[in-house]
Amino acid sequence: MSAQRSLHLNLLFNNAGNVSSAWRWPDSDPRAFIDSNYYVKAAQLCEKGTFDAIFFSDSLALNDSPEFKPFQSLEPTVLLATIAAHTERIGLIATISSSYNDPFNIARRFASLDHISGGRTGINIVTTADAAAARNFGQTDVYAHADRYARGAEFIEVVQKLWDSWEADALVGDKAAGRLIDPAKLHEINHSGDYFSVKGPLNVPRAPQGRPVVVQAGGSSDGRDVAARHAEIVFTAAHTLEDAERYATDLRQRARAFGRPDDAIAILPGLVTVIGSTEAEAKRRSDQLWDLVPLQYGVNRLATVLGLEPSDLSLDKPLPRDIPKPARGSHTAFEQITGLAREKNLTVRELIRVLGGGATMHRVITGTPDKVADSIEQWFLSGHVDGFNVVPDVISSGLEVFVGEVVPLLRKKGIFRSQYTGKTLRDHYGLATPASLYPSNPGNAAQTVKANPSLKATA
Amino acid sequence: MSAQRSLHLNLLFNNAGNVSSAWRWPDSDPRAFIDSNYYVKAAQLCEKGTFDAIFFSDSLALNDSPEFKPFQSLEPTVLLATIAAHTERIGLIATISSSYNDPFNIARRFASLDHISGGRTGINIVTTADAAAARNFGQTDVYAHADRYARGAEFIEVVQKLWDSWEADALVGDKAAGRLIDPAKLHEINHSGDYFSVKGPLNVPRAPQGRPVVVQAGGSSDGRDVAARHAEIVFTAAHTLEDAERYATDLRQRARAFGRPDDAIAILPGLVTVIGSTEAEAKRRSDQLWDLVPLQYGVNRLATVLGLEPSDLSLDKPLPRDIPKPARGSHTAFEQITGLAREKNLTVRELIRVLGGGATMHRVITGTPDKVADSIEQWFLSGHVDGFNVVPDVISSGLEVFVGEVVPLLRKKGIFRSQYTGKTLRDHYGLATPASLYPSNPGNAAQTVKANPSLKATA
Repeated sequence: MSAQRSLHLNLLFNNAGNVSSAWRWPDSDPRAFIDSNYYVKAAQLCEKGTFDAIFFSDSLALNDSPEFKPFQSLEPTVLLATIAAHTERIGLIATISSSYNDPFNIARRFASLDHISGGRTGINIVTTADAAAARNFGQTDVYAHADRYARGAEFIEVVQKLWDSWEADALVGDKAAGRLIDPAKLHEINHSGDYFSVKGPLNVPRAPQGRPVVVQAGGSSDGRDVAARHAEIVFTAAHTLEDAERYATDLRQRARAFGRPDDAIAILPGLVTVIGSTEAEAKRRSDQLWDLVPLQYGVNRLATVLGLEPSDLSLDKPLPRDIPKPARGSHTAFEQITGLAREKNLTVRELIRVLGGGATMHRVITGTPDKVADSIEQWFLSGHVDGFNVVPDVISSGLEVFVGEVVPLLRKKGIFRSQYTGKTLRDHYGLATPASLYPSNPGNAAQTVKANPSLKATA
Repeated sequence: MSAQRSLHLNLLFNNAGNVSSAWRWPDSDPRAFIDSNYYVKAAQLCEKGTFDAIFFSDSLALNDSPEFKPFQSLEPTVLLATIAAHTERIGLIATISSSYNDPFNIARRFASLDHISGGRTGINIVTTADAAAARNFGQTDVYAHADRYARGAEFIEVVQKLWDSWEADALVGDKAAGRLIDPAKLHEINHSGDYFSVKGPLNVPRAPQGRPVVVQAGGSSDGRDVAARHAEIVFTAAHTLEDAERYATDLRQRARAFGRPDDAIAILPGLVTVIGSTEAEAKRRSDQLWDLVPLQYGVNRLATVLGLEPSDLSLDKPLPRDIPKPARGSHTAFEQITGLAREKNLTVRELIRVLGGGATMHRVITGTPDKVADSIEQWFLSGHVDGFNVVPDVISSGLEVFVGEVVPLLRKKGIFRSQYTGKTLRDHYGLATPASLYPSNPGNAAQTVKANPSLKATA
C-alpha cells in the first residue's frame, strides 16, 4: 500500500434510501423520487462531504412492486445533467443497459455529460436480465446469460472506440484560417462485430476525461472478466472481510491476465449504514424502519430474485432446498442471498430483515458513527477494498449524519480527503487517462474520415 | 382570429448561428458549441425575451463538413437538462430520431425531462435519412422513405401510449398506509405493431404536462400526415406568404380529416435574421458574414442535400437540369432548394448565398429591427403562421439585437407577450393537455398491471 492511497466513497443513490420503507420515514417526502431538487440537495451534501461520486443504479421496467416503494424513475443521464449544473466537483455515475441501447447513442450521451460537467462522468454498463424490461424492447424474454455478457463486452469496446475517435487536439478552432477541426485527427472506428457495426467517428470532440470512467457492477464470472478487462471502479457486494479478500484476489488475478496493474481498479463494496448516537439508538432506528416495511413487499422481492413464486416461501421456515439457478435475473444476487441464508441458517423472515426489507444484498452496519468509521478504516487498511458505495438507510437523515459525523472521523483518521484536490472523477480516484486506441496522426490524410466526400475537400 | 391569438417565437439553436461562418464572427467563441455555458446564457437571454422555447435540431453522425463549421454535438436532452437548471420558464424542445432509438427509452427520457423542468419539454420526432447515421447503427444505408415514416408514426404512437400509461393520480404517496402508488391506475400498453412491441407501463409517473408537446418538422406528404395527426407545433419552411398559406391550408385540411380543430397545431416557419441599425448596416453585416463562408463548404453541403457530387456543380451556372430525387436525404429540402433555384433562376453561387452558406433552407430577412418586426406582424396577422422559429445569423450578437430591439417592437404592436403568463410549454402555446388514451380506472383491478405477480399482492 503506498502512502498516497486514499479512501473512496460514492453515494449509491437508492431512491429514498436503502430500506424499502425509507420513503415512509418522518423526514422523507414520498414524491421526492421524481423531484430533481431532492437529488440536487443530496448531491450538494455529498459534495460538502467530499464524496468521490454519486451513483445511480437503473432499471428499464416498472417491476419492483411500485405500490410499496420508490424506484429509479427519472432517467439517470438527464438527472445527472441537472445535478451537474448545481454542483462543481462531485463525480456523476449513471447506469446504462448494454442490452437495450445502441453504443453510438450512449457514447455520445456520456461524452456530452462529460463536457457539460467538466469531466465528472462515470458509466456503469450493465447487462439487463429483467424479463419485464425485455418486454419493453420488443422481446418476449431476456437474452441468455452468456449472450448478454458477450454483447455487453462488445458494447464497452465500441463505446471506448468512439470516445477515442477524436484526438485531443482535433478541435483547432482557428477563426482566422476558417479551420474549426483538423479532419486528419478524426478516426473512423469501422467496428464490425457479433452485435454491432459502427462506422464512427463520434460527433462529439474528445471528452475532458479522455474517456468517462468505466464502472462495473456484475459479480458473475462473466461479469468479473468484463470488469478485469475494462473497469476502473467495481461495485461489489461483500458481507465479510473474507468475502472482500476472495473477491479482490480473484479480480486482480483476472486483471493481471489482461496486463493491468493491481491499482488499475478501485474495489468498492456496498455498505448500508443505520446510524444512531448510541448503539441502542441505532438499533431502535433499525427496528422502527423495519416495522414500516410491508412484509409482503419483502416476500415478493425475495421470490423475484430467487426465481420463485411468493407462495413458495414460508416466513418462519428456511429457504426451500435446492432452488434451481433462475433462468432470468442476476446470478450474483441469487448466489449471495442463498449463500447468506444457508450460512447463517436464517428463516425467510430473518433473511428479508437482513436484506433491509428485500431491497439490497449489501452489508449493513448498525451503530454509532465511531463504529461505522472504525469498520470502514479496518476494511480499507486491509487492502482488499478501496472504499465503499455508501447506502444510507434513509437518504435524508441517514446521509446527513454520515456526512456530518462519519466523514469527520474518517478525515481525522487520515484516510479520507478534507477537500477535493482535483476537478474530475479521474482526479478523485487517481485514475490515469487511458491511452487512445488510435495513434496520434498528425496530417496523415490517408487515415482520415472518408465517409462523406465533403470531408476531404478543402476551401 | 380570436382576440387571444398570440405570436409564438422559438429560438432555433443552430450552433453558432444560421450562417455557416457564424463561428468566425468577432463575438463568437469557436469552442462554444461544446460549452454548456454558452447555451445556458443564450437560453437565459431568450427567457428575458419571453420566447416560447429554445429548439435543438440534431444529427446522429459527423457528416456536415466539421472542418468548416460547428454542428449539433452535445446530445440535446442532457444539454436541455442542464439548461433547465439555469432557467425557469422557457420551453425546451429537443429533436430525436425515430429511426435509431427505442420508444421506451425516449418516452422515459422526455417524461423525466418534463418532471425535471416543471413541464417545459417538447419533442421533435424526426426520421433519419442520413446514410452516415445509418452506418453508426448497424446499417449500410438508410431505411426507405415510406418505411422511415411508417416507423416514425408508430414510434410517436408508442411514446404517447407510454406517457398515458400512468393516470395523473396514480402516485398516491400515502406514508401512513404504506401505499406509494395505486396499481389500478397504471396501464400496460401491450403495443404490438409492425416496428415495435412494448408492454409498459412506463417507469415514470405522468409528466407535469401530461405529455410533452409534440413538434413535427418534416414537410413531405408522409411528414405532413404525421404532423396532421400528432403535431402540436410544426416547424416548416416558407419563403413567401403564399408558401405559408399553401402549407397552412394543406396541413389544416389534413388535420381536419383526423378530427382536429384548426387551432390544434401552431405553425412556425423558420426565419433567419440579419439585423443592422440601418438597411445599409444590415447589408454590410450580411456581406461580411458571407465573405467568411468557405465557398467549398457551401458547394459540399448543397451537393449532399441534392444527392450529387460537388464536381457536378458549377459555381456560375444554374443547377443541373433534371436532378433525380435523391434516394437518401430530406425530400422537403430537395424540393424547396431546387424550386427556389429555378423560380429565381439562381446560379449555384447565388443559391449558396441565399441559403446562408448552404446551412439552411429558410427565409432570410436582412434589415432593421423595424423591418423584421413589421414582417413578423404581417405574416402573423395573415393567419397563415402562428409565429416563427427564429434563427439569428450569429447567436451571440444576432440574438442580443433580436431580444433587445425586435421583441420590444413586437410587444408594442400588441402581438407578443411582455411576460410569461404560465409555467409550462403548453401554457405558453395555449395548448390543451391531450386526453389520455386510457380511461380513468378507479379501483378496477382487472385492468391493472399484471406483468409481475407481486404487483397484485397487498401487504
